[in-house]
This record gives sequence, C-alpha cells and structure tokens, in this order.
Amino acid sequence: MSGSVSPLAPKTFTAMPALRGVRMTTASAGIKYKNRTDVLLMVFDKPAAVAGVFTRSKCPSAPVDFCRKNLAHGSARAVVVNSGNANAFTGLKGRQATELTAKSAAAAVGCSENEVYLASTGVIGEPLDATKFAGVLDTMAKDAVSDFWFEAAKAIMTTDTYPKVATRTAEIGGVKVTINGIAKGAGMIAPDMATMLSFVVTDADISSSALQTLLSEGVGPSFNSMTVDSDTSTSDTLMLFATGAAAADGQAHIDRADDPKLAGFRAALNELLKDLAIQVVRDGEGATKMLEITVTGAESDAAAKRIALSIANSPLVKTAAAGEDANWGRVVMAVGKAGEMADRDKLAIWFGDVRVAVNGERDASYSEEAASNVMKQQDIPVKVDLGLGNGRATVWTCDLTKEYVAINGDYRS
Amino acid sequence: MSGSVSPLAPKTFTAMPALRGVRMTTASAGIKYKNRTDVLLMVFDKPAAVAGVFTRSKCPSAPVDFCRKNLAHGSARAVVVNSGNANAFTGLKGRQATELTAKSAAAAVGCSENEVYLASTGVIGEPLDATKFAGVLDTMAKDAVSDFWFEAAKAIMTTDTYPKVATRTAEIGGVKVTINGIAKGAGMIAPDMATMLSFVVTDADISSSALQTLLSEGVGPSFNSMTVDSDTSTSDTLMLFATGAAAADGQAHIDRADDPKLAGFRAALNELLKDLAIQVVRDGEGATKMLEITVTGAESDAAAKRIALSIANSPLVKTAAAGEDANWGRVVMAVGKAGEMADRDKLAIWFGDVRVAVNGERDASYSEEAASNVMKQQDIPVKVDLGLGNGRATVWTCDLTKEYVAINGDYRS
Repeated sequence: MSGSVSPLAPKTFTAMPALRGVRMTTASAGIKYKNRTDVLLMVFDKPAAVAGVFTRSKCPSAPVDFCRKNLAHGSARAVVVNSGNANAFTGLKGRQATELTAKSAAAAVGCSENEVYLASTGVIGEPLDATKFAGVLDTMAKDAVSDFWFEAAKAIMTTDTYPKVATRTAEIGGVKVTINGIAKGAGMIAPDMATMLSFVVTDADISSSALQTLLSEGVGPSFNSMTVDSDTSTSDTLMLFATGAAAADGQAHIDRADDPKLAGFRAALNELLKDLAIQVVRDGEGATKMLEITVTGAESDAAAKRIALSIANSPLVKTAAAGEDANWGRVVMAVGKAGEMADRDKLAIWFGDVRVAVNGERDASYSEEAASNVMKQQDIPVKVDLGLGNGRATVWTCDLTKEYVAINGDYRS
Repeated sequence: MSGSVSPLAPKTFTAMPALRGVRMTTASAGIKYKNRTDVLLMVFDKPAAVAGVFTRSKCPSAPVDFCRKNLAHGSARAVVVNSGNANAFTGLKGRQATELTAKSAAAAVGCSENEVYLASTGVIGEPLDATKFAGVLDTMAKDAVSDFWFEAAKAIMTTDTYPKVATRTAEIGGVKVTINGIAKGAGMIAPDMATMLSFVVTDADISSSALQTLLSEGVGPSFNSMTVDSDTSTSDTLMLFATGAAAADGQAHIDRADDPKLAGFRAALNELLKDLAIQVVRDGEGATKMLEITVTGAESDAAAKRIALSIANSPLVKTAAAGEDANWGRVVMAVGKAGEMADRDKLAIWFGDVRVAVNGERDASYSEEAASNVMKQQDIPVKVDLGLGNGRATVWTCDLTKEYVAINGDYRS
C-alpha cells in the first residue's frame, strides 16, 4: 500500500506467450470500490482438465468449499477471481454468493455450474454482493482474449508490489507444450497449502487425475516450502488446468501421472511452481531480504523441513536478517525449538559460504566481517547441517521489517 | 535498550519482604562489560529443597544441562546467575565453564558442587570465561543479605524495561509461610517451558519431590501460557526453592504434593507464577498492548490452548493489535490454521464485551466503533468460543510493533 515496489522485485518481467484454449479479461464490478478492476474471468473454450490444492485452514472461505466440491466433476470452463472481498466467514450468505456467482458465470460462458471455479481475496467476514457479477460476466466472456496473462497477474494483486508470472515449455512424446502461471499474495503467507492464489494453465492434453497428482506432489517443495509470516489464509488456492489444445499437434492424451512421457512436463511444472513461489516470498510484505534456508543431515526430509520452517518463521531470525546481523545464535535457538531430533554438539551453520559454527560451537576460524558481508546481500543463503542422517529440505522466507508492521497495523486485509 | 519503560509496566512495585533462609547479593565480574553488575549470588544458609523446569529446546545451554543433572540430588545451597553471556552452544568449553563456576561457588559457600545451580543469559555461542567468577564469589557469599529481592530482580534484567517481582503468603497447617519470586525476560519468549529466568523461594518446609510436582503443574497455566514472539530460548529456567525456615514456627514438614495441607500454598504459588508470567508479557519487547486470549468450547483443554496460542503467535493478529484494528478476520484465520477441530459455522468472537462474530458470520448488531474502543485499551480481552465442547484455555501475549523489529534488528542477543 506504500506504493513502492519491493527491492527484491524482478528486474525484468518474463514475456508471457498466449496459450491455446484459454482466454481472459478483467472488469470493474464495484465489489468494494468503484472504478477499480476487481474481477478476472478465465474462460476455457472447451472443457479443461482441472486439479487444485487449497488451504488446510479449518475455516476455509466459501469459494474454497465451492471449488473442492466441483473438483469431483473434473472439468472446467470458467474461473472467476475477485478482489476486495474474501467471501470468508460469511456463513449461509457466503454459500449463496458462490452459487449466484457460478450461475452468472455459467450463463455467460454457456456451461454447467459445476464447471465453474471461484476464488476471492480481500476482507474476511463481509458479505459479498454477488449480484454485482451478473452485470459484467456476460460482456467479459465475449471480450476475453488469449494474450492477457500479464494483465491478469496485475489484476489479482492486493498488497503485492509487482505481478507474478512464469512460463515454461516441455515436450510430451515429442510435441511441445506450454505452461503459464500467475500468482498473488504478499502477506498471510505460510505453508500448509498453496498460501495464496495461483492459477496455472497448460495446453497439454492430460487427465484431471494425473494433473491432481502432479500438482499435489509439486506443491510440497514449492509453495508449501515458503513462508512470509507463518499465517495461513482462509482462501489459499492453487489450481492447474489443461486445455488439451496440444492434441491438435498430435500429443497423445496422458491419463496417468506415472506415464514416463510426463518426465519433462513434470520437471517444467515443478520449476514453474518454484519460480512463482519464490516470486511471492520476494514480494513478502515489507521484505528487503530473501533467505534460502537449507537443512541437511536431519533424520528425515520431513524433520529437515520442520526445522527449516522453524528457522524461517522465527521472528528473531527474521529481524536479525532485517538488521543485517549474522546472529547465528538465533538459528541455534530456532533449531532447538523445532521439536525435531538435534544434537547440539554436531550442529554446523553457514551464512553463504561462511561456516560460523561447527561441532556445537563457534567456528574457530569464523570471521564476523565475512559473515556480515553475506548478510548485506539481498539473497542470503543459510545452511544448517545436523550431522544425524540424510534428511534435507530447502525453504524460502523474507526478513521481518518495520514496514511489515506498518502494512499490517493499518490495512484491514 | 531504548531506555524507555514499557507503557504496560506496573504503576507501583510490590514491597518485597525478606525471606528467612536465603540471602543474595550482586557484583561486577566483568563477564562482557567492565563495571556493570552482571552476577547474582543466592545463598541458602541450610540446604534447601529444590525443583526446576527448563527449556524444551534440543539445544539447551550448558547451565541448563548442569541444573538438570544436579536436580537429582534434591538439595540447593547456592544459585549463580550471570548476564552478558548465555554459555549456550559453547560445546566442551561450556561444560568446563559450568564446572569451574560451580567449584568457585561451592568453595565460597562451603557446600558440594552438586548443591549449586547456574543460569546464564546473554549472547549465544561466545565462550564464557568462568575464571572471572572466582574473584568475586567469596566476597559475595559474605556480603549476601536477606533483604535484597528488588535489587536481585533488577540485576538479572537484560532487555527488560522494569524488574519483575511478586510475593504471596499462605498458611500450611496454620503456620504462615511466604513465597517470593523474581523473573526476567522480554524477548525470545514462548511456551514450551519456562521461557525466561525466574527464581522463586519459600520459607515453607516442603520436600523437593513435592515442590517439583507443584512447579510442573503450576507452569502450565502461567509461564507456559504466555508468548511474546513464539521463540523459545536455549536457556529458559524456572526454579523453586524451599528453605524450610518455617519449621521453626512449627510448620510440619510436607513430603507429598497431594497433602491436603498444601491447598492454600498451591493456590498462592500458582497466583505468584501467573503474576510473574504476566509481568514478563507486559514487558515484551516493543509491547504497547497486552492481549488476554481465552478460548472456550474446544474439544479439550489442550486443543483450546493450541488454538489460543495460534492466535497469540499470529503476526497478523499482533500487528492488528498494534494498529488498534478490531480485525477479527485475522482471529478467524488463526483459529483455522491451528490444526485443531473447529467448525467455522459455530464460531463466535468477542473483543472485550463486544461480540463481533457469531454462528460463522459477522454479528448483525456488531458495532465497529465499540470494538475499536476495546482495541484502544492497553489490555485487550479476546474471546473465542468454538461451540464444540468444554475445553478452555487462557493465554497472554503482547502486540507486535515496529519497536520489536528495531530492538531485535540491532541487538546481538
């Protein structure tokens, strides 16, 4: 809200190619403010395969409930995304709003209501007046164009300071396919699911069940490995759609996620998910530094991830990063509190290439100046080796600054 | 470090009575700085019964290891507390330092090394030069006086802005006994144990095993129900000593924690622990508000406590408090992410007496102004009813301010 772009923003934005089978446009429905773009409509010309992962919150928003229900049908024709109102904690009114929105979208696109997917961000607890969609969706369905990805990414921003886009290509059985993705979210970001809104579309011809497996596996080392403030939104939504347009180029339909022909696609998808996830962390509210925290030598990968997240979520580690303080004692503290097996006297810690601690004490050859120089970088690699086993994990977070407090002390999000 | 006292500090300090059987004094040993009081010695004239609870960190400090080992002996003659250096993550040197300190203290007091207890706070990872204690402990043992509680509380302060003291009396079998306690700790405070340093002494005649039961039970709804920043120190130590001096007044020795004669003492001890714990939260780094968060209607008391701590540790809830924003949507978010059973559509939330949400949606008669007025108070009661069962818990936390970031971005703690 301060109007300034994160210092960690990309220097240049990726040019996003059009993607066959999907069109988009935005409009102003007046959800919260007049004359502000607040609705994105994504239209699939033919039914697309669909997969989704959602917040693990026990208090999910009405659109999350709605999407979960529709996923069983396995087919998507429209996605409606609005800002200004999260339609979360809105009770019966919330369910009525999702039903009315889906009805309007289905009428506009000419599909069934169970082929519509919804996502809302904004204020929690305010009833969403879905009648406002009725007036704009018809026109939007007609106006939607395929070359709209960057605009779409901009349209779904809230406290984001830059749009998040990513694109990759891969081959399936010798046929080139493309994957495009957009994401938003700069606060209320933590693992335990998708942690924001993100929509990924490919023109590949892949079944919904295979997509779901790819997405569920891909979210672990990407979106579920990043944290801005340890808080989990009620509305986190990550969806993956496949338009199947590449079938026209001879791509044979893929039915199963374990099909060997998916290897390249899976790698490209995972890269794209990681790319988007890191862009979200780099736009963490008030962020001036990104920390890449790698834990090795843990009892298991799961233990490594819990320790890495304990470090990444520690306010004391994050404020030290903000102050460019190579305070490895706080890393020790965060390892100790994670609840996972750790042997103090086997622990080693690095900032960048500088080993600051080894065998449970300060590294004898540790240079405060060298460690401080690492802390002055925008991107700070932190590595912890537990010396116990082969478990490893990498997570990403940003620093905790006064600006984070200012943004969240003032903004009714 | 800013020199200003927390706005939540007590307006007046309790007058601390002398307590028979224990004497204290402070000195400057030059641990980190010259000419600054940095050692507190507590001497028990006769062996005192002793109990302790310590950090659950997997990377505990050397003094924590040392105390845990000595507890088995069940007898205390001396406590040495230093600031300036935590003697944590110091490997073999750390163990040598605790042994040398205990040796010096034992010689000064005239006791066995296993009757000595140690606590250190300050920088993690710096070797502690324990030879510095040898020069001061002899004189301290002679100079120690019984009327020194307030001075002792001041001596153990680090980023604290005011000393924490509390006193209570109780009767055991008609004989009056006194309990005095001091505590320190303003950052790196979270449950999972004592969360700071605190020393409590009574002149009652109670066995070590009974004391341990009383303390272990008492810490749950007091120190383990408060959080400043969710970070758990490597050095958290809470100890309870009984000098037994009240035996001279005819108090019959208490051997078991389930002795009915302990009822009054137990209540007084629990009140004192809660009093000290709340004083610590009210001196949370950068704090301008205290939040008392009560969760009712949970499936169990344990579930209620986890949900209450999820709210108390949420950066978004804490920044909203700092901004005096009655942002109950963030409370919903924190309930949802706690991982405990919750039914969105049964949830009700209050700020003070203002019910802002009920049955899973905004309270129809909710007044933003009334809720905002509650947020303007220094002490903000937050209540959440889950509508599921009879589990309940109350926890305390403070707000998250720019000052917290400033303190921890600059101070190598």
